[in-house]
Amino acid sequence: MAEMDTSSAPSHPLIESDHIEGTAVYAVDGKRIGTIKRLVIEKISGHVVYAVTTFGGFLGLGSETHTIPWELLHYEPTLGGYKTNITEEQLRKAPEFSRGDESLLSGHERKQLVDFYGGYPL
Amino acid sequence: MAEMDTSSAPSHPLIESDHIEGTAVYAVDGKRIGTIKRLVIEKISGHVVYAVTTFGGFLGLGSETHTIPWELLHYEPTLGGYKTNITEEQLRKAPEFSRGDESLLSGHERKQLVDFYGGYPL
Repeated sequence: MAEMDTSSAPSHPLIESDHIEGTAVYAVDGKRIGTIKRLVIEKISGHVVYAVTTFGGFLGLGSETHTIPWELLHYEPTLGGYKTNITEEQLRKAPEFSRGDESLLSGHERKQLVDFYGGYPL
Repeated sequence: MAEMDTSSAPSHPLIESDHIEGTAVYAVDGKRIGTIKRLVIEKISGHVVYAVTTFGGFLGLGSETHTIPWELLHYEPTLGGYKTNITEEQLRKAPEFSRGDESLLSGHERKQLVDFYGGYPL
């Protein structure tokens, strides 16, 4: 009962790790383009570094799962989900290792993904 | 297949949100005293703020679930789990709202929990 109450409160600033799946992801124009499948967390710091996201809303793109750097997602309380300025072109060109369910990237892959999505520090 | 490979690598610095359940928690003397049930994450920052942990290893204490501030857990790669200096006495005296599955605390409760467990900033 407690869990039902909390999961029905999208505006709460906290979320439980077992309730993340299905959180909506929106493009900058407000269109819903995907949902979060899981988060990837640094064990020591407790910081989320990636959101494994299933995209299906871009024109011409079938449903695809991508490991997306957390920095590309911005939470919008009014939407109850995350906005991203990620583009369809970026997803089309994303490195092979960042596709599908291989979300525990190596150090080398982490660097490659930072470079690919714009060079921000992780 | 990919998921089986990654979940069997406890020394990897990253963990997936859907593989957190069951991560071991140890007392300072190395005794296994509990397991993590879920993490509670700030939606905006992507920082883990609590670990909902089931304790069962303290002498005289039955199995109890507590919402524990993340700052009390220190990851030990050699153990593949977290060490904590939390005491049985603290758990016995923990606020009622921090017990069980009510892990999405209010702002007031968050402050109370900080005070109870030693006053560090959240």
